[in-house]
Amino acid sequence: MLNNKQPHYFLGIDGGGSKCKAVVVSKDNIILGTGISGPGNPLHGFEQATNSITASALLALEDAHLADIPLNNIIAGVGLAGVNLPVLFDKMSSWQHPFKQFFLATDLFIACLGAHQGGEGAVMITGTGSCGFSYVDGHPFIIGAHGFPHGDKGSGAWFGLQAAKQVLLSIDGIVAPSIMTHFLLKKLNCKNDTALVEVIAGKPATFFAQLAHLVFDAAEQGDKVAKSIIEEGANYINHITQTLSNKNPPRMSMIGGLAPRLKPWLSDKTRSILSEPLNPPEMGAVLFAKTQLALQ
Amino acid sequence: MLNNKQPHYFLGIDGGGSKCKAVVVSKDNIILGTGISGPGNPLHGFEQATNSITASALLALEDAHLADIPLNNIIAGVGLAGVNLPVLFDKMSSWQHPFKQFFLATDLFIACLGAHQGGEGAVMITGTGSCGFSYVDGHPFIIGAHGFPHGDKGSGAWFGLQAAKQVLLSIDGIVAPSIMTHFLLKKLNCKNDTALVEVIAGKPATFFAQLAHLVFDAAEQGDKVAKSIIEEGANYINHITQTLSNKNPPRMSMIGGLAPRLKPWLSDKTRSILSEPLNPPEMGAVLFAKTQLALQ
Repeated sequence: MLNNKQPHYFLGIDGGGSKCKAVVVSKDNIILGTGISGPGNPLHGFEQATNSITASALLALEDAHLADIPLNNIIAGVGLAGVNLPVLFDKMSSWQHPFKQFFLATDLFIACLGAHQGGEGAVMITGTGSCGFSYVDGHPFIIGAHGFPHGDKGSGAWFGLQAAKQVLLSIDGIVAPSIMTHFLLKKLNCKNDTALVEVIAGKPATFFAQLAHLVFDAAEQGDKVAKSIIEEGANYINHITQTLSNKNPPRMSMIGGLAPRLKPWLSDKTRSILSEPLNPPEMGAVLFAKTQLALQ
Repeated sequence: MLNNKQPHYFLGIDGGGSKCKAVVVSKDNIILGTGISGPGNPLHGFEQATNSITASALLALEDAHLADIPLNNIIAGVGLAGVNLPVLFDKMSSWQHPFKQFFLATDLFIACLGAHQGGEGAVMITGTGSCGFSYVDGHPFIIGAHGFPHGDKGSGAWFGLQAAKQVLLSIDGIVAPSIMTHFLLKKLNCKNDTALVEVIAGKPATFFAQLAHLVFDAAEQGDKVAKSIIEEGANYINHITQTLSNKNPPRMSMIGGLAPRLKPWLSDKTRSILSEPLNPPEMGAVLFAKTQLALQ
């Protein structure tokens, strides 16, 4: 059914901190099926990441009614969060993967390839984490992507964490409670402060990212505390976007789950240099695999 | 050797996020031996906490040349971080402990009893975490103690996290590098940014607390970024101390590993209301056990 020179199908996989998304596409890049599984960032566990990658691939094949094709017949392009750290790139590269071939890149690189239809450009990513990436004249450049809780300013996890911090300060009587306080306690189903402290103890970035939208909800209702959090985050994103722009990318897009909420808060200058992404990151992973295959 | 009404020895144990410290004392509160083991905060694991408590007790007995006395012959007063959360207090209370009797309190309560020789008062704690506590007219009152990374402003972990965040912003080109940048990279033995990001990924509060001193070192050498971090932390501690003072405690002390570094940065008003602690928290745990025993 398949021959080595012209594979019929490709898998494109985008593994992030909260989920792993796979597409199976035809040789002319038509999406035939998609699959979504758990976290795919190897920073939070090699086994979880590899299980998520395999699971998302199998789900995509099932969705495409191609479940009878074994994974070792299909070439996969995989972009993963975390593998910008050399130690994690090496670890994932040594994985005894189930695919016919496995081409590994950062989630940033496949997102950029996807957004610009395989061409060069830049992406400002604001999802659970935040990061800027450009690929110009064959040179990749990363800014941000430092992780939670110390970095990733302007990301979903960062917004959620700032909200929780402000609400805790209002509990301490240091700042006045605001609309955001009520939204947060309601969202987390907490009747009082002690319940809140218990609920947020030891929680990961993905938990805090779920609180990001209520900061925007509160700000849109005039909450000054929420507004000032958003302005601080937006200011950082403006800075990062400007730094990327200085690399002269042919195109730049803003992507990630928080992008639609954050965009209206960015400066006019930032918004003027952003174009709509042309394809999702998982399609970028397919384009990456095809490019790598052509080089072999 | 022992009789039930007048025990010869008591154990006093203070279990925090980074270590568990035990003392064995004579019936007239003379310290005969001390023992230090691993983390004793059940928030980070019930088994680790209970193992640390037992280990510190055995080490203290060994240090006192009393290793032949079994734990089930000795009454222990135990103060633990985290048990201000009801779910953790219940969990620890259900522990099949190895002692003759086991009296459980928060680390805050035993610290307060220790600082004021068993009397009422207030304590401002700045160690790995931060928290204010008062015990006045029989009423305990807690402020802060919200945990890492969302709360515990002005604590060791908070100072370390702020330092890491600033250094990462300087890597992004958002702020200028300062003396603190060099101190941090040197302390963590990192030659570059990528190495730094790898080293701090996923680290707990105790890791960041180890970075707190370099913020003070940098500020003392004139680093403005470090100074502004310390001023923000000190301002929070001033607020909390004032809130405690409003409860009219007979005495107030500042304790915890970071107290000596932070004190010179507090307002004159705050410093004027602080007295030296009279005894360490683990002795407070002994005083607590004795009081509870007298009530039986």
